[in-house]
Amino acid sequence: MQRVLAGSLRWASQIHLPSFSSSLFFDNTQTQLQQYHHFHSAKDFEPQSWNSMEGLVQCSANHVPLSPIGFLERSSKAYRDNTSLIYGSITYTWLQTYQRCLKLASSLTQLGISPGDVVATFSYNLPEIYELHFAVPMAGGILCTLNARHDSAMVSTLLAHSEAKLIFVEPQLLETALGALDLLAQKDIKPPILVLLTDFESFTSSSYHNYNNLLENGSYDFEVRRPKSEWDPISINYTSGTTAAPKAVVYTHRGAYLNSIATVLLHGMGTRPVYLWSVPMFHCNGWCLPWGAAAQGATNICIRKVFPKAIFDNIHLHKVTHFGAAPTVLNMIVNSPKDNIHLPLPHMVEIMTGGSPPPPQVMARMEEMGFRVNHIYGLTETYGPATNCVCKPEWDALPPEERYALKARQGLNHLAMEEMDVKDSVTMESVKADGKTIGEVMFRGNTVMSGYFKDLKATEEAFEGGWFRSGDVGVKHEDGYIQLKDRKKDVVISGGENVSTVEVETVLYSHEAVLEAAVVARPDKLWGETPCAFVTLKEGFDNNNVSVDHIIKFCRDRLPHYMAPKTVVFEDLPKTSTGKIQKYILKEKARAMGSLS
Amino acid sequence: MQRVLAGSLRWASQIHLPSFSSSLFFDNTQTQLQQYHHFHSAKDFEPQSWNSMEGLVQCSANHVPLSPIGFLERSSKAYRDNTSLIYGSITYTWLQTYQRCLKLASSLTQLGISPGDVVATFSYNLPEIYELHFAVPMAGGILCTLNARHDSAMVSTLLAHSEAKLIFVEPQLLETALGALDLLAQKDIKPPILVLLTDFESFTSSSYHNYNNLLENGSYDFEVRRPKSEWDPISINYTSGTTAAPKAVVYTHRGAYLNSIATVLLHGMGTRPVYLWSVPMFHCNGWCLPWGAAAQGATNICIRKVFPKAIFDNIHLHKVTHFGAAPTVLNMIVNSPKDNIHLPLPHMVEIMTGGSPPPPQVMARMEEMGFRVNHIYGLTETYGPATNCVCKPEWDALPPEERYALKARQGLNHLAMEEMDVKDSVTMESVKADGKTIGEVMFRGNTVMSGYFKDLKATEEAFEGGWFRSGDVGVKHEDGYIQLKDRKKDVVISGGENVSTVEVETVLYSHEAVLEAAVVARPDKLWGETPCAFVTLKEGFDNNNVSVDHIIKFCRDRLPHYMAPKTVVFEDLPKTSTGKIQKYILKEKARAMGSLS
Repeated sequence: MQRVLAGSLRWASQIHLPSFSSSLFFDNTQTQLQQYHHFHSAKDFEPQSWNSMEGLVQCSANHVPLSPIGFLERSSKAYRDNTSLIYGSITYTWLQTYQRCLKLASSLTQLGISPGDVVATFSYNLPEIYELHFAVPMAGGILCTLNARHDSAMVSTLLAHSEAKLIFVEPQLLETALGALDLLAQKDIKPPILVLLTDFESFTSSSYHNYNNLLENGSYDFEVRRPKSEWDPISINYTSGTTAAPKAVVYTHRGAYLNSIATVLLHGMGTRPVYLWSVPMFHCNGWCLPWGAAAQGATNICIRKVFPKAIFDNIHLHKVTHFGAAPTVLNMIVNSPKDNIHLPLPHMVEIMTGGSPPPPQVMARMEEMGFRVNHIYGLTETYGPATNCVCKPEWDALPPEERYALKARQGLNHLAMEEMDVKDSVTMESVKADGKTIGEVMFRGNTVMSGYFKDLKATEEAFEGGWFRSGDVGVKHEDGYIQLKDRKKDVVISGGENVSTVEVETVLYSHEAVLEAAVVARPDKLWGETPCAFVTLKEGFDNNNVSVDHIIKFCRDRLPHYMAPKTVVFEDLPKTSTGKIQKYILKEKARAMGSLS
Repeated sequence: MQRVLAGSLRWASQIHLPSFSSSLFFDNTQTQLQQYHHFHSAKDFEPQSWNSMEGLVQCSANHVPLSPIGFLERSSKAYRDNTSLIYGSITYTWLQTYQRCLKLASSLTQLGISPGDVVATFSYNLPEIYELHFAVPMAGGILCTLNARHDSAMVSTLLAHSEAKLIFVEPQLLETALGALDLLAQKDIKPPILVLLTDFESFTSSSYHNYNNLLENGSYDFEVRRPKSEWDPISINYTSGTTAAPKAVVYTHRGAYLNSIATVLLHGMGTRPVYLWSVPMFHCNGWCLPWGAAAQGATNICIRKVFPKAIFDNIHLHKVTHFGAAPTVLNMIVNSPKDNIHLPLPHMVEIMTGGSPPPPQVMARMEEMGFRVNHIYGLTETYGPATNCVCKPEWDALPPEERYALKARQGLNHLAMEEMDVKDSVTMESVKADGKTIGEVMFRGNTVMSGYFKDLKATEEAFEGGWFRSGDVGVKHEDGYIQLKDRKKDVVISGGENVSTVEVETVLYSHEAVLEAAVVARPDKLWGETPCAFVTLKEGFDNNNVSVDHIIKFCRDRLPHYMAPKTVVFEDLPKTSTGKIQKYILKEKARAMGSLS
């Protein structure tokens, strides 16, 4: 095997030749000195690399760090005069969006944002948040989209943790944001620069900037700061904190590029789809679809608050073709008053739903209405979607109950997630594909986070064994599809038996009176724990016509007795901003009830 | 900024921590010692890398070398019982294709194929060639698909150059292949092992193996040899040699992965398309679609020879949704006898066409028939498709002539090709986007080859200036779309003026009697060169009703006079196996005619 050697000195500035030597690469501009290690597990064969083939080089002609930034540049030509974004009466084209992002990126640098600096946002799905998904990385910054439902204390904690240099705030959340900045000042932490997202109140305060002024002062000529390495961070997403303190999940340009494309493909988004922004962009960067939508030249429809009437109105007005939604949103649609439901739909509308499996009744009703529901699964740590339940044509011939049971599974890893498996957490052995043996769902691939910022211990724990441990427990079916059974920490252990709270909830959801249900462990002197159900009833139902005993009997008729709830509480369920039920609050309530027996 | 440090020794075997130190990475299995340099051009900011963020790690959980091999593994579950491939009466499912590839890969290793070894094929589009696009890389090998139209001398030259260890041959080409092996033996070069692709003649020769025996002897349990680096080569594609000796273009796993996905997206291939194999898989690995088809769970329809009746038969029989074709194939369809054309089509059929711009008349007739024609452009060096002429909705309202003129442009870089530009070959400045100024089309991105195997000089020339120089000249329009004007070496220089032979050909194609046309330079004492047209007439036309003078006048009426051909020759045009007209043969003919004036 021959080494690749430089042909002549003339090449030194353009083509950087690979070598096996241990010296650092040193380019002739003397400005950079960087090294990249490439890791993989050892296999039963000798290392083999393209470097060993004579005549090949790696240079700027054939190697560019993957980044979703390029999607926007391309769309500004390919979809130049097509609508990029609609928000109320606001409409932009792709050329305008590109130019706005360029100007914004240039203003960010004028405000002192350097590569690697964190830029936070605190807002619902306003158009500006869409733009910042490009403008911030184009300025070399790292985007940190804070959950709009956080209070001042949480915002201040996350700003301090992320070391954000700048925060974009929507006017309605200004008070909370200012509160957070005060808290930082009290702790002698330099607060970030505050930029208000719109100018509708014409703020002239000297204490914060205004988004529109930033745009006006920006320049089209800005030279985009491409990542030096595709492993450079593009964003930080704090986990939603359903179970513990938020952790700072770091996404890379490479991962964002790959997950955007994989999500576009699994969502069946062709050229120029119309995408309704019901998933908050502060949640896993909107499942990477701000970037994916640009890749496909989508028209983005922004709505500040998600409710069924807004969804139907937009479908009819703007011909929405795709949207994502938590199952609670689907639940809202299905149980919405008739006035809010505008049928028939103008065309089949594709929905991605994830977070928890959609109950069969909800799925059936959505399909009757003319939606196609694509069940996905993922975590903040997997850039949002990591799997989908790929529907098989032969399922259509099955009885509804069987069909929806198959569709409620979490399915298979998507194209960019290399492997998914259900493994024994200790031995790391794959569980039997029998649909019964429980193990931990684990992932391996380029769309797994690079880690938790400032928490190496948590990163190491998450990656122990060379796989990302999701903390979800599930089974693998004979066809290779996985199905979640529970969060590892949510499993109820009753008399030594594992009770999957998800299975109990599925039975509860099949009851005609149940709107929402969540099952947690209640302490029990005899059994250790027993299942405790929190249930919200649909309109027209209450404790008088649906009793605790009735619910318990309903479950006992459909489940092994140890799995049926021993306690049932009727009340509204606490939820996160992304619509996830906050089980940890319910667990505390159940714990406070004390032992049943 | 803090460095990332190993948490504990327990991690050493699974998580490899990045560092800025210059020491080589050394994993605890002691089997590998590898380094990877990451190159990029210096910009106006300091290097910034994810490594500088505390708490992150890179390991097998979040980094896997990109490779299209994973597409097949996933499809064996996602599309398990769906049809993967049809060839006459042969039908496989995705599970079967996966298992066949596993067995084949295991047999390849038994035959001595080690990682980095080249495995050649010499065949038209048989199912086995599809399978080898996976089986060879799964065994760690490099696939080298030789053009089935080569003669023994060329095959022996390429086998010697590629150092192929093994060659798969279809029975009808056995004689040519054996001739090539003889030639190698005469030169004392060890010939590759020969494997016959089918067993229909039940060969029992001791001098070569049989594909089906290989399959039978293979094992499902084979552990796939994943690339160590995504820069490892996956294939060698010899250029078609229209203008010079073939060059060995090397593709990487990374490039193949990215170009597969980009091609799937630009071709609008959703889940489970039906793809007709009219593009030879020996041409740019079938535009990377053996891999792309697996990604989307396509049904692959193989046909050994492409002709209009076979295309229509398959569209009706198997509900073909997508196929690729050289413009000559579209020409064949349009000019086919009515008996061979089966209309209406059962549904809209998507066509990708590239190689030369489809003439407006051909495009119009194809669309009338119910095809949608997507005009693409690329070279062997860009993994096949690198651009497409993204159609804009507003074009539909234009008069046909204007619309087809817009669609005949080569358009914009696809998603995986980072940049395309038209530049002055010497100064490297971008030409004006005025649709007039001519420059060289250049590319930069991850879907540009890693180089020409064993020809560093050619590689360096191709990448001079940090861009891949296509050798094609063209213009950039105001909307950013590019349009080819000619091959750099095909331009006719007449009286100091550049004559784009493509423009002259477009006028010739617009004549109702012209089936095919090619324009080359004829030497001229007065003008230096003058355009010389070789023309094939449609059935029903000949020299008697279409004269040389008539053709010349037709062109002079539509072009500046210096651009009109001064010589017209009526004859059949010589073509490569991929349907490209071999201009170098015509150039020799024109040269042999001597000076006109």
